[in-house]
Amino acid sequence: MIQNITCIGAGNVGTHLSKKFYQSGYNIVEVYSRSEEKAAAVAKNTTARAVTNLHHLTEDTDMYIIAVSDQAIESVLNQIPQSGKLIVHTSGSTPITIFQDKVTDYGVLYPLQTFSKERPLDFSTIPFFIEANSRENEQKLRQVIQSLSEYIYHVNSEQRLALHVAAVFACNFTNHMYALAKDVLAQQSIPQEVLGPLIQETADKVREMDPLQAQTGPAVRNDQITMEKHLSYLESDAFKKKLYNFVSQHIQNRHYSK
Amino acid sequence: MIQNITCIGAGNVGTHLSKKFYQSGYNIVEVYSRSEEKAAAVAKNTTARAVTNLHHLTEDTDMYIIAVSDQAIESVLNQIPQSGKLIVHTSGSTPITIFQDKVTDYGVLYPLQTFSKERPLDFSTIPFFIEANSRENEQKLRQVIQSLSEYIYHVNSEQRLALHVAAVFACNFTNHMYALAKDVLAQQSIPQEVLGPLIQETADKVREMDPLQAQTGPAVRNDQITMEKHLSYLESDAFKKKLYNFVSQHIQNRHYSK
Repeated sequence: MIQNITCIGAGNVGTHLSKKFYQSGYNIVEVYSRSEEKAAAVAKNTTARAVTNLHHLTEDTDMYIIAVSDQAIESVLNQIPQSGKLIVHTSGSTPITIFQDKVTDYGVLYPLQTFSKERPLDFSTIPFFIEANSRENEQKLRQVIQSLSEYIYHVNSEQRLALHVAAVFACNFTNHMYALAKDVLAQQSIPQEVLGPLIQETADKVREMDPLQAQTGPAVRNDQITMEKHLSYLESDAFKKKLYNFVSQHIQNRHYSK
Repeated sequence: MIQNITCIGAGNVGTHLSKKFYQSGYNIVEVYSRSEEKAAAVAKNTTARAVTNLHHLTEDTDMYIIAVSDQAIESVLNQIPQSGKLIVHTSGSTPITIFQDKVTDYGVLYPLQTFSKERPLDFSTIPFFIEANSRENEQKLRQVIQSLSEYIYHVNSEQRLALHVAAVFACNFTNHMYALAKDVLAQQSIPQEVLGPLIQETADKVREMDPLQAQTGPAVRNDQITMEKHLSYLESDAFKKKLYNFVSQHIQNRHYSK
């Protein structure tokens, strides 16, 4: 059974996971980051040792969680102790095959959420997607995550990649739409909070309704007159105008070409 | 003081407003729709008379609310009784000048929300944006809306148009992103509910954080390798691929060109 965890990476995901595992009773042995400051920040909250050199990591742990940028995973794998301990990464877009021929016991633990260091999160609702090289390691992973969330799904690497792509649409692109909306209001000195209930209801709606049914607005109504008014309002902002045009057409294609 | 309300239009907005005003103690005198069925549906919930001919509307009311499509507002104005009663429309993109030289007492009542007939809404949080031809009519409008929501703002027609444009970004385009995300999951037989907490957190986040700060994902990190993986995953879906490319570049332009 896993009791001791080493966290490699002190970015948004590493920070949140370390802290949550610590709070759930696990021993965070060491936290690695190239940045001494970042490692120290996580170590402080988890009574872990801060480490800035991968070769100095102790083998005295039960699991290594690699929560670094996708490009850095392979280099981490080449440097950490080959101790036969379970090694997992947290990347949506990196297939499990990255471990092959490098380590013996491995897996993936992908939490579908947007992590910002400064924002506390309710882990109990976060879905975790896991994959492992053996039934035994899958069980180990499942057991560890169970103390964080009851939503644990087994997926293969292709499905996980799909989840990551979906997350880009549902989170990253959505946040960009919020940013553009707030720009528009700022230009008119309208307080941005007025968008709150609309953003909330749009999010609530899609949890209960098919988004095709939930779609409202001029594009789906093919209300050319309103779209023209909006485009002419955006006339001096070619940047937003282009996106308005593009996404409106995308909506219309999706709704009318079927 | 306004006690009797006539609602012209039985679409999403007309339906919700009539019902809410009725529940708040107002008398809904008549509900007009070209469609007998739609008029009857709203009338049933508000003990109003259903009317399908604008010329038959009674003058015995205190306020007409025009909640029809933008293109139909002018035609409605030309047909309803010229009784000197307060006439308002609910359109984000139609300037108040549409009333000029047609009626004497007028205004606009624009609720910033996405309305679907079948979804109940908490009106108490909805911001209402009002405009009127006189201080007196503005006061009247304010008084009526106060029984629905405490969030009442006075804006001019240009600001209201900006609000509508912002709503397209924050709601209509956002919902389209949800739709695309759900498509991607459906293709992999992954239950769509797993996106719920991510969608929720993304919406929550932006109510407290600047969306520029809240932006996460491969585009803002300029993580070309992950974006390439996503684009190659979407290879067979040129439609989504194009949007993925376009919005990613839009995010990068916004974050790196300043």
